[in-house]
This record gives sequence, C-alpha cells and structure tokens, in this order.
Amino acid sequence: MKIGVFGTGMVGNTIATKLVQVGHDVRMGSRSAGNEKSVAWVKSTGARASGGTFADAAAFGELLFNCTAGGVSLGALQAAGAGNLGGKVLIDVSNPLARTAEGMTLSVCNTDSVAEQLQRAFPDLKVVKALNTLTAPLMVNPSLLAGEHDVFVSGNDEGAKARVSQLLKESFGWKNVVDLGDLSAARGQEMYVIFWVRMFGALKSPMFNIHVVR
Amino acid sequence: MKIGVFGTGMVGNTIATKLVQVGHDVRMGSRSAGNEKSVAWVKSTGARASGGTFADAAAFGELLFNCTAGGVSLGALQAAGAGNLGGKVLIDVSNPLARTAEGMTLSVCNTDSVAEQLQRAFPDLKVVKALNTLTAPLMVNPSLLAGEHDVFVSGNDEGAKARVSQLLKESFGWKNVVDLGDLSAARGQEMYVIFWVRMFGALKSPMFNIHVVR
Repeated sequence: MKIGVFGTGMVGNTIATKLVQVGHDVRMGSRSAGNEKSVAWVKSTGARASGGTFADAAAFGELLFNCTAGGVSLGALQAAGAGNLGGKVLIDVSNPLARTAEGMTLSVCNTDSVAEQLQRAFPDLKVVKALNTLTAPLMVNPSLLAGEHDVFVSGNDEGAKARVSQLLKESFGWKNVVDLGDLSAARGQEMYVIFWVRMFGALKSPMFNIHVVR
Repeated sequence: MKIGVFGTGMVGNTIATKLVQVGHDVRMGSRSAGNEKSVAWVKSTGARASGGTFADAAAFGELLFNCTAGGVSLGALQAAGAGNLGGKVLIDVSNPLARTAEGMTLSVCNTDSVAEQLQRAFPDLKVVKALNTLTAPLMVNPSLLAGEHDVFVSGNDEGAKARVSQLLKESFGWKNVVDLGDLSAARGQEMYVIFWVRMFGALKSPMFNIHVVR
C-alpha cells in the first residue's frame, strides 16, 4: 500500500521504516521538501522510501500517519491541504505534550483533543487515534515486551477503525487492539500520556506498556 | 489501627467496611453527624464502626482516607479542620470527575490535581494519592481479577508512602504497588481516569484494571 507519514522525528522515522520493511511504499512528509532528516531517511531506507512536503506525502498516501508533535499537527495538516487529505484514513499518533513551568503538560486536553481538532478541521478525513500511548520502538514491535499488552484505537468511522486495526495487526504485529469508541475517547488516550510520563520517570525506561486485566 | 474515612458513597463505604473486616476501628465522616448513609453503615457494620462529622473522623483517625468526590474534597478537609488533620497521613482516593456538556471531564487537571490542592491547603498533612484508578470493589479486593495488576501511589513524604503501601498490601491484599514519585504525579493518576472512563464504556464493566508490562 502507498502510505504517507507526516513527521520526521523518532515516531515518524520508526513507523515509516517499519512500513517499508513490511512491504509498503512510504512517503515521509515535512514542512520543506529538502528536510535533512527526511533526505537521510530516504537514502538509508531504499527504493520504497521517498520524501516531500506534507502536501506531497498526503497526495501520495492511500493511508496517512500523523507523527508530528500534537501542538503543530493542525498546521501540518493545513499545509497538506484538504484536497490531498480528502476522505482518507489518518492514523493520529500525536501527543500535545508541552514542557512548562508546571512540568510536563498537554496543550489541549479534558474537553478536547488533538485528534478531534484535526477531525473538526477536515470533516471528510477519517481520523483514528492510535499508538500514542507508547514509545516508538514498541509501536511497531510489540513483541519487544514479553507479556501480553494492549494498543487502543478510537474514531468516528467504524470501517476506518477496522482498517487501522488490521494494519496494526498485520504490519506491526499487535494482538490486542482495544476499541475505545468514538473519537472523543482520544481525550482519554492523550490524557493517559501524562500518567505514562510519570511511569517513565518511575521505571527510568520508556520500554513498557499496559495490559488491561479483566 | 484507628482510621478516619471521609465520604459515605460507594468508595467510602467499601473502604471503611473492608478496614473494619480486617480489624481496624473506623469512623466514617460526613458533612453532618446524623448522615443517613453513615448511620446505616454503622448499624450494619458493628462495634468497630462509628460515624460523625468530618472533624470527628479526622480527630479519631491515626490515618485518614479521603473518599469524597474530588470537586468537594477541599471543602471536606476544611470542615475537618487543620487541627484535627495535623501531620497525619491522608490517602486521597478522590477524582475530580464532572459530567459536562462536553462529556465526562475533570474539574482540575493538567497543571494541578485534587491531591496537590489538598496538600497546599494543609502543608503538614502527608497526602498520598492512591486507589483512584479503579472501581471500589477492586480497591479492597484485587484478587477479584485473575491476572496480575497494579495500584499506583504518589506523595511527597517517603515514610507516608511506605506506610500506605504496607496498608495496601496487608489490609487490601495488593501485590504490585508502583511508586510514581512526588505528589505532582497525582495529575497523571487523576488524568488516567478519563482513559478509565472510556475503557469502562468499551468493556461495559468497571471490573478491570491495568498491569504495567516491562
């Protein structure tokens, strides 16, 4: 499948690399076409990898990943353009983390979420929140942890969620995909990250995740 | 041990009852001494149970539980009075949940938490945030779930956290008590609850918890 990945940071790089490894064609999008990290990624990743602007990546992908920081995601999608985004499925991996005087905070939360902001701005887009609750290496390789553990999805379009769940299973190896309901559940997924940050501090490693025990 | 429990709702009732069952003397505190639910609880629970105002419960307990709703917790502690609270350990189980037009929200979050509000108002009190991340029956009986799962504590006083962890293990049967650090981690514990609410909706049961997998 042709996939567009917005963002050249650790999350975008990790997801884009894994997608290429399992046979997808991936275009990494960034603010400028000549982005250094994007160029380096294309060079090291081979023929299935390409780079370009957010608009280039959006036009290229049948499916899109938003791996930009939550605070700049809306701007990235505006740069991608409604015409290129169309009615595609966008997997929103972003977190609106902001380091402030009060510690690590979210720039949006409680009554709204980044995922909902994106959905409101691009009503035709099928936004699915997923993967934002764990560190990048685990997103694409859950078997790095020995025990059973879970990934969470939310979104307003059932077909889009089913497609994302399938991709999480087939391309990334997830076994437990928990559907939290409509996209307002993204508030919970994003607010969880403040808990995650404290767990990270306590465990002194980001290589952990949670399993829901019933 | 003599323990004061603020709150007559499901959480206060469940915790107070369990504490009596394992041999503690418990005074349930509420806004008025003749509170119906408190009177009924005392009648049905036996000689180790007593009721009174928040001030009565605070004066009685060597250790205190705050099981009031997060939005009214500060008022409950003000009614208890700084003199009665003194330098005691207070286990804050509260959540500032508020049902609004935007859905289930927190009345304080992100840059602050109920636990920190209480700690700021009563600097001598040793506030430990714990147990707010799961449904009442599981708080006092973790073995109701078959798999391994975890409870989280945070607080500024290491001795108080050690004492609370011991009580969670000895009186409630917890095996995995995860220390998240100082009391600002209560923001994460409280924000997690919005994620919990969505999990509750997805699973259609509150009888679940999480296990941190490493």
